[in-house]
Amino acid sequence: MTSLTDRPLEPAEPVALHADEPAGHPFPPVFVDRHVGPRDAEYATMLRTVGVADLDALTAAVLPPVIQDAHIEASDIPDLPPALDEPATVAALRALAARNTVATPMIGLGYHGTHTPAVITRNVLENPAWYTAYTPYQPEISQGRLEALLNFQTMVADLTGLPTAGASLLDEATAAAEAMTLMRRVSKVAPDAVMVLDTNVLPQTAAVIGTRAEPLGIEVRRASLAGAPDPAAALAAAAEGRAVFGVLVQYPGADGALQGLAPLVEAAHAAGALVTVAADLLALTLVRSPGDDGADVAVGTTQRFGVPLGFGGPHAGYLAVRKGLERQLPGRLVGVSQDADGAPAYRLALQTREQHIRREKATSNICTAQVLLAVMAAMYAVYHGPEGLRRIAGRTARLAQALAAALRESDVDVVHAEFFDTVLARVPNRARTIVEAARRDGVLLRQVDADHVAVACDETTTIDEICTVLGAFGIDATRALQRGEVPFDRDLPFAGAVPAALLRTSPYLTNPVFTTHRSETAMLRYLRRLSDSDYALDRGMIPLGSCTMKLNAATEMEAVTWPEFAGLHPFAPAEHTEGIRELVDDLARWLAELTGYHTVSLQPNAGSQGELAGLLAIRAYHRDRGETHRTVCLIPSSAHGTNAASAVMAGMRVVVVACDEDGNVDLADLDAKIAEHGANLAAVMVTYPSTHGVFEEGIARLCEAVHAAGGQVYVDGANLNALVGLSRPGAFGADVSHLNLHKTFCIPHGGGGPGVGPVAVREHLAPYLPNHPLDDGAGPATGVGPISAAPYGSAGILPISWAYVRMMGLDGLKKATQTAILAANYVAARLRDHYPVLYTGRGGLVAHECILDLRPITRATGVSVDDVAKRLIDYGFHAPTMSFPVAGTLMVEPTESEDLAELDRFCDAMIAIRGEIERVAAGEWPGDDNPLANAPHTAQCLTDLAGDWTHPYSRAEAVYPAGVVPRFKYWAPVRRIDGAYGDRNLVCSCPPPEAFE
Amino acid sequence: MTSLTDRPLEPAEPVALHADEPAGHPFPPVFVDRHVGPRDAEYATMLRTVGVADLDALTAAVLPPVIQDAHIEASDIPDLPPALDEPATVAALRALAARNTVATPMIGLGYHGTHTPAVITRNVLENPAWYTAYTPYQPEISQGRLEALLNFQTMVADLTGLPTAGASLLDEATAAAEAMTLMRRVSKVAPDAVMVLDTNVLPQTAAVIGTRAEPLGIEVRRASLAGAPDPAAALAAAAEGRAVFGVLVQYPGADGALQGLAPLVEAAHAAGALVTVAADLLALTLVRSPGDDGADVAVGTTQRFGVPLGFGGPHAGYLAVRKGLERQLPGRLVGVSQDADGAPAYRLALQTREQHIRREKATSNICTAQVLLAVMAAMYAVYHGPEGLRRIAGRTARLAQALAAALRESDVDVVHAEFFDTVLARVPNRARTIVEAARRDGVLLRQVDADHVAVACDETTTIDEICTVLGAFGIDATRALQRGEVPFDRDLPFAGAVPAALLRTSPYLTNPVFTTHRSETAMLRYLRRLSDSDYALDRGMIPLGSCTMKLNAATEMEAVTWPEFAGLHPFAPAEHTEGIRELVDDLARWLAELTGYHTVSLQPNAGSQGELAGLLAIRAYHRDRGETHRTVCLIPSSAHGTNAASAVMAGMRVVVVACDEDGNVDLADLDAKIAEHGANLAAVMVTYPSTHGVFEEGIARLCEAVHAAGGQVYVDGANLNALVGLSRPGAFGADVSHLNLHKTFCIPHGGGGPGVGPVAVREHLAPYLPNHPLDDGAGPATGVGPISAAPYGSAGILPISWAYVRMMGLDGLKKATQTAILAANYVAARLRDHYPVLYTGRGGLVAHECILDLRPITRATGVSVDDVAKRLIDYGFHAPTMSFPVAGTLMVEPTESEDLAELDRFCDAMIAIRGEIERVAAGEWPGDDNPLANAPHTAQCLTDLAGDWTHPYSRAEAVYPAGVVPRFKYWAPVRRIDGAYGDRNLVCSCPPPEAFE
Repeated sequence: MTSLTDRPLEPAEPVALHADEPAGHPFPPVFVDRHVGPRDAEYATMLRTVGVADLDALTAAVLPPVIQDAHIEASDIPDLPPALDEPATVAALRALAARNTVATPMIGLGYHGTHTPAVITRNVLENPAWYTAYTPYQPEISQGRLEALLNFQTMVADLTGLPTAGASLLDEATAAAEAMTLMRRVSKVAPDAVMVLDTNVLPQTAAVIGTRAEPLGIEVRRASLAGAPDPAAALAAAAEGRAVFGVLVQYPGADGALQGLAPLVEAAHAAGALVTVAADLLALTLVRSPGDDGADVAVGTTQRFGVPLGFGGPHAGYLAVRKGLERQLPGRLVGVSQDADGAPAYRLALQTREQHIRREKATSNICTAQVLLAVMAAMYAVYHGPEGLRRIAGRTARLAQALAAALRESDVDVVHAEFFDTVLARVPNRARTIVEAARRDGVLLRQVDADHVAVACDETTTIDEICTVLGAFGIDATRALQRGEVPFDRDLPFAGAVPAALLRTSPYLTNPVFTTHRSETAMLRYLRRLSDSDYALDRGMIPLGSCTMKLNAATEMEAVTWPEFAGLHPFAPAEHTEGIRELVDDLARWLAELTGYHTVSLQPNAGSQGELAGLLAIRAYHRDRGETHRTVCLIPSSAHGTNAASAVMAGMRVVVVACDEDGNVDLADLDAKIAEHGANLAAVMVTYPSTHGVFEEGIARLCEAVHAAGGQVYVDGANLNALVGLSRPGAFGADVSHLNLHKTFCIPHGGGGPGVGPVAVREHLAPYLPNHPLDDGAGPATGVGPISAAPYGSAGILPISWAYVRMMGLDGLKKATQTAILAANYVAARLRDHYPVLYTGRGGLVAHECILDLRPITRATGVSVDDVAKRLIDYGFHAPTMSFPVAGTLMVEPTESEDLAELDRFCDAMIAIRGEIERVAAGEWPGDDNPLANAPHTAQCLTDLAGDWTHPYSRAEAVYPAGVVPRFKYWAPVRRIDGAYGDRNLVCSCPPPEAFE
Repeated sequence: MTSLTDRPLEPAEPVALHADEPAGHPFPPVFVDRHVGPRDAEYATMLRTVGVADLDALTAAVLPPVIQDAHIEASDIPDLPPALDEPATVAALRALAARNTVATPMIGLGYHGTHTPAVITRNVLENPAWYTAYTPYQPEISQGRLEALLNFQTMVADLTGLPTAGASLLDEATAAAEAMTLMRRVSKVAPDAVMVLDTNVLPQTAAVIGTRAEPLGIEVRRASLAGAPDPAAALAAAAEGRAVFGVLVQYPGADGALQGLAPLVEAAHAAGALVTVAADLLALTLVRSPGDDGADVAVGTTQRFGVPLGFGGPHAGYLAVRKGLERQLPGRLVGVSQDADGAPAYRLALQTREQHIRREKATSNICTAQVLLAVMAAMYAVYHGPEGLRRIAGRTARLAQALAAALRESDVDVVHAEFFDTVLARVPNRARTIVEAARRDGVLLRQVDADHVAVACDETTTIDEICTVLGAFGIDATRALQRGEVPFDRDLPFAGAVPAALLRTSPYLTNPVFTTHRSETAMLRYLRRLSDSDYALDRGMIPLGSCTMKLNAATEMEAVTWPEFAGLHPFAPAEHTEGIRELVDDLARWLAELTGYHTVSLQPNAGSQGELAGLLAIRAYHRDRGETHRTVCLIPSSAHGTNAASAVMAGMRVVVVACDEDGNVDLADLDAKIAEHGANLAAVMVTYPSTHGVFEEGIARLCEAVHAAGGQVYVDGANLNALVGLSRPGAFGADVSHLNLHKTFCIPHGGGGPGVGPVAVREHLAPYLPNHPLDDGAGPATGVGPISAAPYGSAGILPISWAYVRMMGLDGLKKATQTAILAANYVAARLRDHYPVLYTGRGGLVAHECILDLRPITRATGVSVDDVAKRLIDYGFHAPTMSFPVAGTLMVEPTESEDLAELDRFCDAMIAIRGEIERVAAGEWPGDDNPLANAPHTAQCLTDLAGDWTHPYSRAEAVYPAGVVPRFKYWAPVRRIDGAYGDRNLVCSCPPPEAFE
């Protein structure tokens, strides 16, 4: 029967029963009306305040003509059907899910089956209090996830035997690439020294390192090092006379071999090289740690600690370092400090290392972490504890041994005598047949080559599955079992398979946090207590400029935890992953069409990686045309720090272009820089609308000038929430952009990750997008190599953005963008008499965010942007972005999802704070003792626990300023945190409980 | 291949890698070790404190020999396999789910398809902050769900046009039965007056009324009243000369007919009868309300307001009354009052009406409500608002009209000219064929009889489905549509189908709460704000004696929201419901075996209904033996109030048996009462272990004496958490029990429902269990009729208990019970020097709960049990049960799920409170101004908002007493609530926002 659902049942006018029936929203409810905050009457109020007639009039007024010319029509997005309602979208996702086959994943290669404890799935992964939180830049209202991350760091540090671990990286492969550059920075050997990878490193890790090494001019060699009879000789042979700055070895190896690290570490150190060990954390519960054997760095993934496979991600990678290298760590690091009352408090440590501060001097472009996944992995360790993890590891190892023993008994050659979870079988010419037989029985094995099959056991492996595997090898395990002759003996000892010298003796997870939350009740309460410490979108607005903290709808999130998406191994065969592949293709096509580009790659698993991928495409394009000298990248001074850092990583030289006093790119300076560098110009990187929140008029001129000089135009998609549905960067002059699905396309920030940063390019750059050595479908054969470990990056969360686009349709996306612009202009209009709005565009309008300039106020009163940000906590808000892009300012991005009541609550709070500042200015309150300087106030400071109340303002003024409803007050758990104290006294793992007494 | 998973891989001793490896829990983790709170070392401490060697020694010491003789062996539960781990249990549930078919449910009969907004599913139904809360008896820490319930009451009152609605009843049928007895109480007509049911009442409602009327001696007549040309005459004819006290009419009728109420109401009132209208709330958004037409009572279900079908339940029933009947309302009623600072605050109103107070004088045995579902339905109305609901209703009606028009056009006879959502088609001899054809195409219709088919439209109905239905009637809708000739016209007016006289004009949902939370962001925050006001198990211990607030594990909850269970219509065909039916059968069999009974019926959807079913079985048993005179029910004075109320409803006469000074049933008084009433003795109802928390020694003697006198022994299963796995009531002398799955078997309390109260009987009573007119499999043909609207009661939540039993196995259940007994004895041991423990059994031990006697303290100091309960809030606890079963005492039931740290935190708090009491006793603090009298303290009262701090104790002593960690403090949103004020000034719907200013 022909489907009729596309024919709307609704009348043009909604059902009207009575004359007074208000014109309203159609039924079934259109999702966009749930996604945007304001109702019709609220739109009217906001439009009136801004002084425009309607949304179209607003965007006509605010967008420069060239941007309007690049507008989008339904015909531009032939692949995006009209908006679907929520239930139908869930049904469509279920239909896609049904086309995936969740088989038993015994492929290994860094991805393993794991059981996520249900209490963690429900109360972290499916809980908006965790997933809608932002990066903990405001530590006073982020103590919960900071504690969880400290647990993560402690877990990684303990298991790797290295004292300092970061708060997670994007995946194992990029962590290894970060370790490479870290070793290069630290090693004192010659500049032309090489990096040596053990041949047994995971193939995707080796490939990502290759992608990242090439533009940096680092030469990478492969050699069989682990277990070599003479590691020093092997290293020297690999280096071919060059010095070696770093060595990377997999532990256990990709093919399962378990070999001691000590001889290799000794040889490398003797040669002046550092050693990074890519280590399996579960194995480390049983075998000697990298730290035990003197390694400098350890990297890896924490996926098998309860994080779903998700067709490759997101998972939390890790990186840990030996003493002395703390300040070299890329990415986020949580540390312990103290608050204004001297109480212990957590915050991000050593932020001065980070790219957003160091810009082109940055040593990495890493911004985000994988907080939500790191929290899950840490909680998995908290829930199982050291002995639980050891038991999981022991059982996994015993299953692998049982398999090996059964294979050997049937005269199958088991290559390695010593292994942890992975058995490598030599089966001359039979590998393909065996792997296919297992697949037919629902088990995925790894065909290493024509003669070898690898089988990886994990936490979820059952004896039935081992029997299935044996069956695929042609061995009837059941019959043997029934005869009682087979080695599935319950008493099979683990210890036998690990050489005594490799057995771990050093302790781990000794902090009480890893032993006190073991019942489900205790874990549930611990998770609640931590999340209750934090402020996330489920409490109120997070008006962070440039971060687009909008609704993450429950319907969008729903499919993420379905087993049909969550249970897929990234290297599962195509016929098992039809549904997710179609979803990936849909989303990539929709995003390309919406942005006016030709091709989108979803592989980059963070915005920074999208940037790098885009710049590598530009680099490759120039090189393919023989213009290898084109390495200059022009970047305006207002740019995100990541831009410069990524450019350096892509082998480019950054030349800064000035901004004029209106905050726009100084086109005269641009011309001058082009004149100076024209022949060597690779690209310009601009954000549009600009990081100043303005639709710059000069964008067309800029694109033309750069193109005329032979350069490429990179438009950073960070502010795409001001463009989607209105205009397309690919149509107004840009050659490449990365998008932030975790901003514009509703993937939640997760407390600081996961992010997804697809890269979108015009046709001429498409041949240079990322690809993947293990998945031909993931990118062009001519591509630059993989940018992430998994072929489709964080595929497991792509259903979120798919659902968002599907439910919004073009009209909905346009309305969302217009609403976001309206909201920012409404806030600017309400606040401009109280705080100068720093930059505006046409008609005095801003784009989707506005900068409030505190500098004159600070000069006049001493009240800093920090004071206002912390005072906003007392009012029940997360602060706007502080001091970016201009020091001493606040950048406000309300997004489309806030309703008028919340926008007004925020504006009222800001105006009330302005009144408080006046009282400081008037001398009524001393500069060092006023509600701003002392903010945030805890409940505790109302009592005598913190000493007598001697302030010149009342307790009620402190904690219940105007607009705060006492019974619904959010209480910050700590007072203002002294970050510098913690940096001076660096503590980056769990403090003992006495610290809190 | 033979499955090998039942053969454990584990060694008897866990893997030990090092000599110092502690003996630990096996892997895969056994669920029982997550379910119970203590770890091994904690068990040791607790056992030492109690003074027993191990758990078996404890239960050997505490259980009387006769109870020990009724112990359970694995052989007693042949149908319960060994414990399964969590992932395997989820897999088993998925396999059951896969055997259900979710078809389009157009059967109607009070159950309709509905879209639960995803934001409500995730943040209410799947959120432990909502589902692990208890009944709001402690209103200061229940303001969130009390507000949600007030929204529910307002929604029902507004839509029905009657001023007062309760906080939900169990389902529509039992609500109608409650309305019957309410009308009987209120009507002034003769005692032999009859009740008249319209013939168009839902069949299950009529049957439940029949079950409930019979023991009360109420005669029920059926007649066609609605739309009768002369309702007065029709009524008189039905009454056959008797008076009529009440009339029940369905609106719209079960067959879809929509007929005005006014003439019938007028005729009934003229005859001295009251009128109850069973009304569809969705229809009421369009048509005149019962209140508009003068009805006295309205009942119904709120299922189609976003509550999943769940194969019949749980859903929230409703009952609303006209002015003057407020105090006659059965069940819970939320009202507005004020707190100690004069701030508005919610609490349960008019509790003196309730059965737990009135006992055998109660007019209903209703205890629990369906809070979780009522919250969902209320939030559905909050999210859609009045115009959204009207639009949903209008679309539903238009689809029905389109269907009717298409049928008529093809010359199918549409019986009723006026209807809302249900079309009744006359198809002589073709009904079965049509229904089967539709079923083959995935749509379920209702075969009314051989000649009639009813088709019910709902919110989820699509045009495709209407076409499918037409196809089943042999009409090619698609072809017709393509010709543009069919009536699926988008402009089809709704108003045409409802007579103008029936169109609703009265307003509804005018309180701002129904217009302010319309974006998903706003709704998310509203839900969070409300749940943050409340204290639930996810914050800490709820040591409520008799309520068994134990872990509701995430794995147990998981399947509840799967569409394969949530989407089943209760009257779906057996071949579509194989999975859920097998689950029901499994659970019934396991429960029967665990309790030593022959048969279990899962139909009763609350403990009270299980009681009634059990007593009705006893009644029927005696009557079948010709002993109709056996109507005396002996009930000890210590019994739950419900017992007496249920006995009265079962047509029995309650005779109270005294307790001796040790709290045990006074066997001498028992003998005396048996001697007096022996010939008329129907039953004895006792709770075991007793409500005093003691394993009474006399239970065997009691059973023997009652049996010898020809009576039956009813053992109330409220305290089964002290017996499961240790002993079986059916084996130590009982004939019947009801169980509380929401206590012992882990269904969460939901903030005050849903409950499930299966009834378990020995073989001789099995023929008298409930059955159901629409499902032959739901009970014996000889049964007493249905006790609930749905054949399997609240089938939608039975996966919770199924998963619990499956994961625990017999050993796990036994360990849980032993741990619960240990925890209670540990608390008693730690507190007995500070508070007298009122009753104990053998060896000074208690069962699974203990009573702390405050009376001497109150006499000596004036500090009341209320003061201690409210002070516990300041310490971060939900109070134990207050003044039950003994006024002036606290009953503590810690359950097995609390770990030692939480038990100690509670004991420490109680001891610290004892110290505070001493300071009052010593005169250090005045009796009317001390931390106990003023408890609970809000954060607000620390500030000058509540006036100066003039108390003789410090602010810190008020809010951070010993053991409270300031940064994790739970703040009560209001101070102590004045219940009496609210009862005097009864307000039971949402107050205007100004009330909170």
